[in-house]
Amino acid sequence: MESGEPSSPIRNGTKIPGTHPGDRYIRHVASGDLPIREIAPGRFVAEPAEPVSIFGKAWFRLRRAIIGRPLHTAEAPHQRIGKVKALAVFSSDALSSTAYGPEEILRILILAGSAAYAYTLPIWLAIVLLIMIVVFSYRQTIRAYPHGGGTYIVSRENLGVGAGLVAAAALLSDYILTVAVSISAGVAAITSALPSLFPVRVELAVAAILFLTIANLRGIRESATIFTVPTYAYIVCLGLLIVLGVASLAGIGPEAHPVRYEPPPPSSPLTLFLVLRAFAAGSTTLTGIEAISNGLPAFKDPQPENARTTLLAMGLLLVGLFSGVTLLSYHSHLMPSDRETIVSQLARTLVDDSPFYYVIQAATALILFLAANTAFADFPRLAYFLARDRYLPRQFRFQGERLAFSTGIVTLGLVSCLLVILRRADVSALIPLYAVGVFTAFTLSQSGMVVHWWRKARGDLRRLQWHSLLMNGLGAITTGIVTAVILVTKFIHGAWIVVVVMPLLIAMMVGTHRHYVSVAEQLRVSPEEARRRLRIVPRRIVAIVPVFSLNRASLLALNYARAVADDVTAVHVATEPESGELLQERWRETGLTIPLVIVDSPYRELLGPLVAVIEKLHREKGAPLITVVIPEFVTAHWWERLLHTQTAWRLRRALADIPDIVITTVPYHLQE
Amino acid sequence: MESGEPSSPIRNGTKIPGTHPGDRYIRHVASGDLPIREIAPGRFVAEPAEPVSIFGKAWFRLRRAIIGRPLHTAEAPHQRIGKVKALAVFSSDALSSTAYGPEEILRILILAGSAAYAYTLPIWLAIVLLIMIVVFSYRQTIRAYPHGGGTYIVSRENLGVGAGLVAAAALLSDYILTVAVSISAGVAAITSALPSLFPVRVELAVAAILFLTIANLRGIRESATIFTVPTYAYIVCLGLLIVLGVASLAGIGPEAHPVRYEPPPPSSPLTLFLVLRAFAAGSTTLTGIEAISNGLPAFKDPQPENARTTLLAMGLLLVGLFSGVTLLSYHSHLMPSDRETIVSQLARTLVDDSPFYYVIQAATALILFLAANTAFADFPRLAYFLARDRYLPRQFRFQGERLAFSTGIVTLGLVSCLLVILRRADVSALIPLYAVGVFTAFTLSQSGMVVHWWRKARGDLRRLQWHSLLMNGLGAITTGIVTAVILVTKFIHGAWIVVVVMPLLIAMMVGTHRHYVSVAEQLRVSPEEARRRLRIVPRRIVAIVPVFSLNRASLLALNYARAVADDVTAVHVATEPESGELLQERWRETGLTIPLVIVDSPYRELLGPLVAVIEKLHREKGAPLITVVIPEFVTAHWWERLLHTQTAWRLRRALADIPDIVITTVPYHLQE
Repeated sequence: MESGEPSSPIRNGTKIPGTHPGDRYIRHVASGDLPIREIAPGRFVAEPAEPVSIFGKAWFRLRRAIIGRPLHTAEAPHQRIGKVKALAVFSSDALSSTAYGPEEILRILILAGSAAYAYTLPIWLAIVLLIMIVVFSYRQTIRAYPHGGGTYIVSRENLGVGAGLVAAAALLSDYILTVAVSISAGVAAITSALPSLFPVRVELAVAAILFLTIANLRGIRESATIFTVPTYAYIVCLGLLIVLGVASLAGIGPEAHPVRYEPPPPSSPLTLFLVLRAFAAGSTTLTGIEAISNGLPAFKDPQPENARTTLLAMGLLLVGLFSGVTLLSYHSHLMPSDRETIVSQLARTLVDDSPFYYVIQAATALILFLAANTAFADFPRLAYFLARDRYLPRQFRFQGERLAFSTGIVTLGLVSCLLVILRRADVSALIPLYAVGVFTAFTLSQSGMVVHWWRKARGDLRRLQWHSLLMNGLGAITTGIVTAVILVTKFIHGAWIVVVVMPLLIAMMVGTHRHYVSVAEQLRVSPEEARRRLRIVPRRIVAIVPVFSLNRASLLALNYARAVADDVTAVHVATEPESGELLQERWRETGLTIPLVIVDSPYRELLGPLVAVIEKLHREKGAPLITVVIPEFVTAHWWERLLHTQTAWRLRRALADIPDIVITTVPYHLQE
Repeated sequence: MESGEPSSPIRNGTKIPGTHPGDRYIRHVASGDLPIREIAPGRFVAEPAEPVSIFGKAWFRLRRAIIGRPLHTAEAPHQRIGKVKALAVFSSDALSSTAYGPEEILRILILAGSAAYAYTLPIWLAIVLLIMIVVFSYRQTIRAYPHGGGTYIVSRENLGVGAGLVAAAALLSDYILTVAVSISAGVAAITSALPSLFPVRVELAVAAILFLTIANLRGIRESATIFTVPTYAYIVCLGLLIVLGVASLAGIGPEAHPVRYEPPPPSSPLTLFLVLRAFAAGSTTLTGIEAISNGLPAFKDPQPENARTTLLAMGLLLVGLFSGVTLLSYHSHLMPSDRETIVSQLARTLVDDSPFYYVIQAATALILFLAANTAFADFPRLAYFLARDRYLPRQFRFQGERLAFSTGIVTLGLVSCLLVILRRADVSALIPLYAVGVFTAFTLSQSGMVVHWWRKARGDLRRLQWHSLLMNGLGAITTGIVTAVILVTKFIHGAWIVVVVMPLLIAMMVGTHRHYVSVAEQLRVSPEEARRRLRIVPRRIVAIVPVFSLNRASLLALNYARAVADDVTAVHVATEPESGELLQERWRETGLTIPLVIVDSPYRELLGPLVAVIEKLHREKGAPLITVVIPEFVTAHWWERLLHTQTAWRLRRALADIPDIVITTVPYHLQE
């Protein structure tokens, strides 16, 4: 980490209560040793410190061991990177899809028998064209949004909130699938090389997701160096493999050792639908292309120029690697298998069992894990934007101890884990869910750009940037058609799940927004209204004290009630026949002047009658607010609470939903 | 039910909040329709009513369907019964043990081969003698405690609290085992007649326990009529069977159809230890003899005379049935089997597959279930006494809606279920755990009686009731020896569990007692001290209001704080860099004069710094109590709470353990 000035030093000995349920502040901290520092009158700075209780301490230490020491807000990284590193950082997602995209095309075509393989060539051509169209289309986006034009922002700004939410929902589901697919494909690369690990592939995938979750909770920066090695290693290895393959075909390279799996018996006629389905499967190769336009702020100046160049370079690399893998696999008549990936077969065909084969598989697995990792950066960031705009719960806004958006990271980890387990870490079973979201987002983003250029001209055709508008228009139409093709051809194979989930997600976002807006409106107060409200101090405080027996705890509560209120009534519910009379007797004996109301409860119910009599008195007293002062004795140890019936806690719960009741708990702390 | 005057009528339409977590009181009840009735100024009577919320209502209706309408405290039954019914009520436990006691003797002896069967006779004789000694010993107890001399009371009064607790722990574990053993034996009677049910015996046993638990939660009275039929049916059936058997042996009865199971290969030498072990197993026949002296208050006058007669009758019946089953089984050379009980074998030998055979099995199963049911009356009652004396959690004191001691009933049901499942409803596997508790209780009770007679004479030997003292002394010594024999011979087979569990139980009871006494002492206040405490009204109320932003909820809290307190400070923790300045600005704008303290939290922690600054202010202000006034907005629906971070709730939790902090929640109720 290059940036990040040293924050205020962490005082290890200081004790403060933590924010987690386990971290309870048991007793007064050592005198004067509070973890806040006064920097001006009435102004303090908090310092991190360890909790006091045993559980709190253990949880704190465990957390620190796993995710590291808390980071100061000022430690947030602001790192900018050049083109070479940027290519590595932002293209791992896109380039890694060459490890499964070509295979998915063959996997669909083979359903109609080996003869259908001939259709690989037109599909290849269509996808290469699609890549170039999308790349050039996004180059226009970068020009228009030189400081970052994420799909959600572009769609919302130009097409309205509805489109923005559709794009957001599409992207969120897409990021989840990026993790599931990339991790599954990475594990497949490993199990192709080490078949003995095949039976534990689901466990491996779950472990990889857990590892990424924890790493991201630690807040690994998009530290370019980490990304550079595997991305370039993959480019070099796959590039070298492709060169070898071409040389071999030309008769000047190494001898090929064809790997041959049995083709499955044809199960489907060769129809246009099947060819389109194969194309749709292959279009997953495009996932991740949008990363550069989302990631603009990280580029060195001049940002747009650097980003456009990087995007073009990525597009060319993507075309090259995709073409190489697809065409070589086609020429070598490789058959998709459940046990070995096409890339692994290709590598074994050309370099046999040599060390280079294992290097290729390792590089493939690594870049796929990195691709999953980019989703761990993108999902929480998008969720943060959505939460900021009040479309997601505000928990997604919080930055954890390590400045990471913990809620988003954990959510992504859990949901993608679930998907991987449900689909048994099988890439082919996940692919039908994928791509729908990506291409929906592409279409909305490009359409938004068309509107953008049109609006920018403000009706003046001479100022219209025709070139950009046409490029984005072509992109929008093409990706729109592809979205339709994907939806139709993959519908019964799983795309329907996305069709069901996305509207639900959007409805939840809209409902959440409505709630937050309503709450904000109900709570909002203008300075004038605030002044007016503050002028009216409640005239009369009316208090009710539930008394179970006359002891030190209830005396303390009665006394406190007398001090704060002008009108105090004690209430006793007699669950046993004589207890009312006994308490009245003690009341007389003590000379208590506070009126005592007694409710006989012949059905031995306590809370119901108590709440009813509080309601009754509330109505009779006619005060806008009524204060219920609950005496509560607090035991020294948590396990001692099991020996008491927690009446105070249950009463507080029962009263919590009734309006205009202020609940005051007066604790009486017991000794050991 | 003969007694029970009609209580105040139940108004079905009335709505009140229930006492259960699900029963939340959502909104004001319909005007004037509160479920309390004013009977005098300041004096109300509560009436049962249905809760308002959906979950509350569903849970209420389910409960009512299963356990019935709530009962008025005045509906508690006070039924007294004559000798004939009393014999049925109190002897089901003791007499039913003849269904498994003899079998357990044979089961141990057969381990040393068929020749060992000869030792059945001396063991039979020893147990018959033991029964008579214990019966005559308990007749002395009844004389001394004409109004009920339960083992716990007799031991505690005469031998001290320690002995009382040992007896109580022994009895509690014994009641649990009574349920487990009787239910398992009852199921064995059923599966002997219907072997196809053998594979589901554990499920049958669990279902039977569940049924008894629910029936007892409904509060079935010890309605003598229910008990009379199966108890006398068992006595008549088994008596008839024994008469038939004797007649058959004498050659004047029906022809015997011997049932023959293969004896298992001998696995143990015939030692004195084995014979003693067989005796110990057979001694379970004595369980339940103490029931009559515990149940004295239920007898019609003259209570002691009636009880003594009933006890003698029960003893004679027990001797008769035990002797009949044991001696006939011995003479017919019946072999214990896992699939068929000895009683079933005996019945089949004499009456073959006739309808009478099924009647016998049904009567056996029924009396065993009744025996288990008596434990469901005894365990909760003993637990109530112990809770009243503060040795068990006070939850055991509560009488549920149906006047039953629900906590004790549910505890017994759960623990005995667990035992039955762990031991696969196998009587022989449960027997080694049984009897230790019973005989420990016998020994303590009889020893207590010896002390009782001695003390009663007050050193004057002429006033000493020699006869009673000797009888109880003989009982104490005999049962003491038997306890030792049982412990030693069954130790490795399971009695060690009791040896481990009982001290734990006693330690828990002592710890519980210590805690309650300490709490009571800390809370107790004399009228003088109460008067003194009430003279000192807290002089100065110091309040702290945590403010997250300036809105209607926080304004309400600030205003309330100003009304009740003399010194109000607002506190804001700035988890985001600018929020402190923003709030200060709004404070100025509104012209708020309440001082505002700001804590910058660069590690984004909220609760820790908040608690620390509250502590800090608490120390500076020097007031004995500090009041934290928490603004809280309450959402209209529970699921909306998920969209908020429950800061108020978390703060209340974090503050709950710090002494001298009064927590006041000022709710602001949001609309839909």
